[in-house]
Parts: sequence; structure tokens; C-alpha cells
Amino acid sequence: MEENINEIKELIENKKMNKLHEKLECINCADFPALFEELDKEQIIVIYRLLSKERAAEVFAELDSDVQEALINSITDKELQNIIDQLFMDDATDLIEEMPANVVKRILKNINSENRKIINELLKYPDDSAGSIMTVEFVDLKENMTVQEAFDRIKKIGLKKETVYNCYVTDAKRKLLGTVELKDLLVAERDELIKDIMDTNTFKVTTVMNKEEVAKMFDKYNFIALPVVDKEERLVGIITIDDAIDVMQDAVAEDFEIMAAMQPTEDSYFKTSIFTHSKNRIVWLLFLMLSSIVTGSIITQYEEAFATIPLLVAFIPMIMGTGGNCGSQSSTLIIRGLATDEIRIKDFFKVWWKEIRVSLIVGIILAVVNGARIMVQYQNLQLAFVVGITLVITAMIAKSLGCILPILAKKLKLDPAIMAAPLITTIVDTCSVLVFFNVAVLIMHI
Amino acid sequence: MEENINEIKELIENKKMNKLHEKLECINCADFPALFEELDKEQIIVIYRLLSKERAAEVFAELDSDVQEALINSITDKELQNIIDQLFMDDATDLIEEMPANVVKRILKNINSENRKIINELLKYPDDSAGSIMTVEFVDLKENMTVQEAFDRIKKIGLKKETVYNCYVTDAKRKLLGTVELKDLLVAERDELIKDIMDTNTFKVTTVMNKEEVAKMFDKYNFIALPVVDKEERLVGIITIDDAIDVMQDAVAEDFEIMAAMQPTEDSYFKTSIFTHSKNRIVWLLFLMLSSIVTGSIITQYEEAFATIPLLVAFIPMIMGTGGNCGSQSSTLIIRGLATDEIRIKDFFKVWWKEIRVSLIVGIILAVVNGARIMVQYQNLQLAFVVGITLVITAMIAKSLGCILPILAKKLKLDPAIMAAPLITTIVDTCSVLVFFNVAVLIMHI
Repeated sequence: MEENINEIKELIENKKMNKLHEKLECINCADFPALFEELDKEQIIVIYRLLSKERAAEVFAELDSDVQEALINSITDKELQNIIDQLFMDDATDLIEEMPANVVKRILKNINSENRKIINELLKYPDDSAGSIMTVEFVDLKENMTVQEAFDRIKKIGLKKETVYNCYVTDAKRKLLGTVELKDLLVAERDELIKDIMDTNTFKVTTVMNKEEVAKMFDKYNFIALPVVDKEERLVGIITIDDAIDVMQDAVAEDFEIMAAMQPTEDSYFKTSIFTHSKNRIVWLLFLMLSSIVTGSIITQYEEAFATIPLLVAFIPMIMGTGGNCGSQSSTLIIRGLATDEIRIKDFFKVWWKEIRVSLIVGIILAVVNGARIMVQYQNLQLAFVVGITLVITAMIAKSLGCILPILAKKLKLDPAIMAAPLITTIVDTCSVLVFFNVAVLIMHI
Repeated sequence: MEENINEIKELIENKKMNKLHEKLECINCADFPALFEELDKEQIIVIYRLLSKERAAEVFAELDSDVQEALINSITDKELQNIIDQLFMDDATDLIEEMPANVVKRILKNINSENRKIINELLKYPDDSAGSIMTVEFVDLKENMTVQEAFDRIKKIGLKKETVYNCYVTDAKRKLLGTVELKDLLVAERDELIKDIMDTNTFKVTTVMNKEEVAKMFDKYNFIALPVVDKEERLVGIITIDDAIDVMQDAVAEDFEIMAAMQPTEDSYFKTSIFTHSKNRIVWLLFLMLSSIVTGSIITQYEEAFATIPLLVAFIPMIMGTGGNCGSQSSTLIIRGLATDEIRIKDFFKVWWKEIRVSLIVGIILAVVNGARIMVQYQNLQLAFVVGITLVITAMIAKSLGCILPILAKKLKLDPAIMAAPLITTIVDTCSVLVFFNVAVLIMHI
């Protein structure tokens, strides 16, 4: 790609438009955003005007919203109209959602009334719904069509559609009756009727279904596209695999951010300003910082203990750290398991019992290794026992909380991802310090 | 699904085979694993024998390896042969990789020699290579075929193939010349030549390419399938979108596990025994526990300080916790950015400069809020300053390490995911305690 960029820059500078045109034809639409990042505004427009109508729209859909805005502001109404006409309706809707008001006004002015109506409908679907990611371009067939008629219809309308590999059969009221795959049409005789070859056992989703649930269906059943119906079972759109993959990726990115105690954003790392970065991070940091005051005040209550045996303080970081790590291991596994439907709320006791046994095993190993090291370093059997017992109990508490809290969150219809390492660690800190000093007081008779 | 399961159980018990057969036809192949989980071994075999040949193989490919093994052990050689013949070659290869030796022997005995050869070839590709996830079933065309001949070929061989929507044009030496999409064939005239309609600007991958890189290409370019060529540029297989999605999911699952200080596993949570769970978790726990001894021994060096002002100890959890959270926020963002190619090694200074500024903002806010709380609770301006300065410096160190270490890991060709919260937290703990006591000694003249 890098050599391409340099070559293109040279071609623009030397005004070799024919060569440039040829070169651009070989570049995949999805590579233009990276190319445009390296060029200045005038160069981008020169290149953009060399693209064919179809490719111009496809490239446009791939661009970041700030580049889209800059482009719209530099082209004529006629050019804008061309782009919008060629865009898939779901991409056009996304565009309108992301542009500032003055740009939206100009876009709407340049859309024909039919498309404006469709876009208005699409804009009504909530952000997390299947309706918000569907496209209204699909091939619909009637059950009394012959295979030949179906082919004719696909040829006539289908090739501009986002996917032609699945065709949908509807009745007069647009109710979905079944699906026909293009490959089934291929083997059928030309005069067979669609109703005889269609698959009536059709998977479909509703416009109001959660889009992440829809994405999971794509993953599980290996669909290329899924039909979307409204409340009255009428076919209103389809969701294609590429949009489902985007939903999966966004869901993962969101989970990673929430699990690291941040408010999730849709923007990329570099596109997010330092103030937004700070805002997204400070809320959880403040909350967790203030929560850890509890741990601090527990420690002050044992002032006498560590005044007598100051060495105890040296073990606080190790015990807190190990507890936190034990807890975040479990919570990460459970949160992921819940996200992928591998673990369900009803599995609660099964999971807990498993974590209890695992925590016992790792706790004992940690206690033994650490006991050995304390004996070597301090020859203090009492201390070895205090720390060892604390480690086992802490591991058990940490791993229990690591599975209880995410499942509880799910049960309460909260996002289990908030019960990840940062929050678990803060809670486990309190428990482990409490256990540590109590065990110390008990065994060492302080 | 649940009502389906109960209905099916009843039908088996009452031996209503016709009804059962009908019922089974309506169940998607991907739903059989969930169904089988609820049935006993005999019931599974009854159901399995009612499936058509094609569906039997498809269902088989969806099953977990322990159910596959149980099934193989309960069916005749003839039945086994039927399954293997119908399986896609990549699924057959996966099966052989996962079965114990005695089962593999029986499988190999029941494969025809041609397929055995193909499987042997597939087994040679390393686990993380494109070759290991490709299938050898695809539609290949010649450039001098007409569109009609292409259709005939697709009808003859294509419908058993994993995807017929992309056809590949090869020369006599099987070198890849171009791609023809099925929809392009549809609009072409019957007597047009393939070489006139094929797209020669074909994306392809090599057998040795990393499979995660291949999955990223699917995501970026919205492919349904990608051709795979060997060193001599000969077409040897294709990778389909469903396998690419699996690779993406596995990569994410692996990252989550590594980032929570665990050795990644391929098995599901419940399929993994408690000993394997313990083994996967103990290594990092031990390493991090022993690393935290450093923090402990730093604390012992400041015994005098906290003997004079015991309140200092109460702030250790808060400072360590906040430092850890600051660090894991940054490291999570950077690790994800590196994984999705949004952040590159060359962006190092850009990222660092951003994190420094963010850490300054959040550090100051944390310091002010905490300072106010100390003034209210203890009326101790010195302490407020000590903790405040420590928080700002710790936030800066934590966020710096959170971006430096993952990028450094990538530079050293290590997995950046190991530089996640647990390791960063342990390192930041040491730094923050050191900063805290030094600032305290300096300001409070202890």
C-alpha cells in the first residue's frame, strides 16, 4: 500500500490523469481510507472525481465521518446526489446520523422523496436494534413465479442489491413465506414454480430484536444474510453478514473498554480527543478510588497489629494483588462465557462449585510456595501460616465473587462486563485485608 | 428449543418414528448439539440414524469432539464411511486432529485413498496458518470455458462445495488467474468466455499466511470467500467467511484469557477440567505473586516512616488500586488498538504523548477530589499534598507503562496481550509505593 501511495502522489503532482485513473482502478474500495489519510484535501477531491459512480459511492461508504463531511462540503449538489443515489439505504442512514445539522440539511435536499421516506423509517429504529443495521435492498420473489421469471427479476433488480444470494418470497401483503437460495435456483428447471423449491423453514428476526443477538445467530448458523420482519410479519429488510461482523467487533470492543473500567466509545483511539478520553476514564477511576477508602479505613483499625509487627504491612501488596488476579481470572472467564451464551444464569451453581474447587487448588499451591519463601527469608512459621491461610481464603473469596457478581449482574439485566477486574479487585482488596489482619491477630495473638 | 427437546423425548419414548422424522427435519443442524446434550447415548443414536446422509454429516461437523467420539464408537463402518464421505475436507481434518489414536485409525481405514491423501496434506499445515483452516472444495473454471459451460460445471460439482458464489479460474498448471462471482455469470451472455468476464485483480492468500491476518482481511474487505495459493501460486483451497469468523472469535477469546493472566485454552469453560483450569491459572498467579515481593520489600524499607505516621499505610490500597486502574485502562486500549491494526508501532510517540496528557488531566482531578476528602476527614494539608502529588505521578507512570509495554512487546514480536492489567498492575504497584513514600519523606520530613 505504501508504494501505491507514493506513486499516486507523484501521478497527481505530474498531472498524469490517465495513468492515475488506471492505478485507482486496481485499488480496493476498502483501501481508500488509508490512502486518503496520506493526502491533502485537494488531492482527495482530484482522486474522488476520477472514480466511477458506483465505486465513488462504495469508497464514500468506507470513509470516516470527518472525511465524508469534508468531501460533501467540497462537491457540487449534482455530485452529492449521485453519491446518495448509489449508497445503500443503511449506509445513507448512518451518514445522516453522523453528519452535523447543516450537512444533513443539504443531504436531505438532494435525496428523492421515496428514499427520504425510507431513511426516515430507518432512523426510527433504536441504536441497538436489528432495524438499525438492516438494509432495505433485497430481492423479493412471489411464490407463483417460475424459476425463469425469478432469474429475470434477479437480473433486473438484484445486481444492485446488497446480496442476491438469498432471495425472499413474499405474499401480496408482503408477509414472508420462505427463502430461495441462488444455488437452488441454479439446479432447478426453468419452469418450476418458486413455491415448490422455496424453503419455508426460514430463520428471520424482527426489527426490534437486539442487534448483538442477531450477530450471534450469524455466528451460530453460518448465514450470509437474514430477513427482518416487522410486527405484522411483513418483510422490511435484510441484514448481511458484513454488518453482523461489524456488530460483533463493536460488542467486543465495548466489552474490553467496560472491563477495563472505561465508558465505551464508538470512535477510534486517535479520533477521540484527550478530553473525551479523560472523561471516559475519570468516572470509574473516581468511583474506584473512593471505594478503596473502605480498605484504607480497615487498615487503620489494625494500627496496633502492624505497630507490633511492621513486617505485616510488607505483605499487603502481595495479598491484595494475588486476590485481585484470582478474581479477575474468574470474572473474565464468566463474563466471556455469558457474552457467548456458553454460560447461562441457570448454570450458576455449576460454575460456582467449579470455581471453589479451582480456587482451593491454586490457593494451596500459592500458600505452599509463599510459605517456603517466608521460611527461607524470615524463618517465621507463624507468619508463613498467617499468609498461607489468608491466600487460600482470599483465593476462594476472589474466585467466588468473580463468578457470583457477573451472573448476578446478568440476572439484574445489567451488563456483566462491569463486574470485571477493576471492580472485583477493589472489592476483593477489602476482603483480603480484613482476612489477613483477622488471621494475623488470631494466630499471632497480637 | 426447550419445548422441541421435550417433544422429541416423548416421540422417542413412544416410538413414533414418522413423527420424529418429520420433527427432526425442521431443526437446524446447528441446534443439534444443544439437543443432544439433553439426551442419553441411545436416544442420540436413534435420532442420528433418522437423519438424511447430507444432514447427518452436517450435524456431525457441529458436534463437540466428545460426542463425535461417542457416536463413532457406536456406529458401523458403513455408517462411518458415509459421514466421512459427506464431510468437508477441512472438517474431516479437524476431526482427525481431535480424536484419540484408536478412533483415528478406524476413521483412516474408512476413507478412500484420494481423500486420505488430501487430509494428509491438510494435516501438514501449522495450526496458525491459513492452510489449516482452508477447505479444498471449490469450483474451478478454465478461462476458455463459456458462461454456459461454467454453469454446467457449477451444477455438476458446485452444489456440494462449501461455496459456489465465488468461482476460481485456473490455468493448466492450476495457477490462479482470476475470480468470477456467480452474480457476474448471471448477467453475462451464455456464449461469453470466462476470460472476458473474470476479475483478474484477485485477492488471495498463501497457505503459510497467519490465519488471524486472513480473518482481518475478511473483516476489512467484506469477502465471502478467499482463494489460497501455495508457494508456486497454484490454487490449493479456499477459506470461507464462517471459518474466518471462527478465527476472529478464537483470537478474541485468547486475548481475553491472556489479558486476565491465564494460559489460553481452546476448550470451553465447562469442558475444561478443574485441574486444567488450575494449571492454566497458577503459572501467572505464582509469577505475579513472587513479583509483588519487590513492592513488599520496598515497604519494609520505609518502616520508620509508617511507624511515625501510621495513617500512611491506610493510603497504600488506594494509591496502588488507582495506579493499577489507570494502567489497565491505557494498556487495554493500546492492546486492542494493536490487535485491530488501528495503532501501529510507528505511532508510539503519538500514543505516548496522548496518554501523558490524559494522565495529567485525570491525575489532577483524582488529586483534587482526594485532597478535598482528606481535608474534610483529617484536616491535614501535608497529607493531602503527599497523596495528591503521588496520584498525579502514579497516573502518569501507569498510563505511560500502559502504552510503552504493549508496543514494546509488539516490537519484540511478543503478544502485546501479556502486557495487560495483571502485569501492568504489579509493576505499577512497585512504582506507586516508591513514589508515595519518597514524596511523604520529602514533604513530611520524616
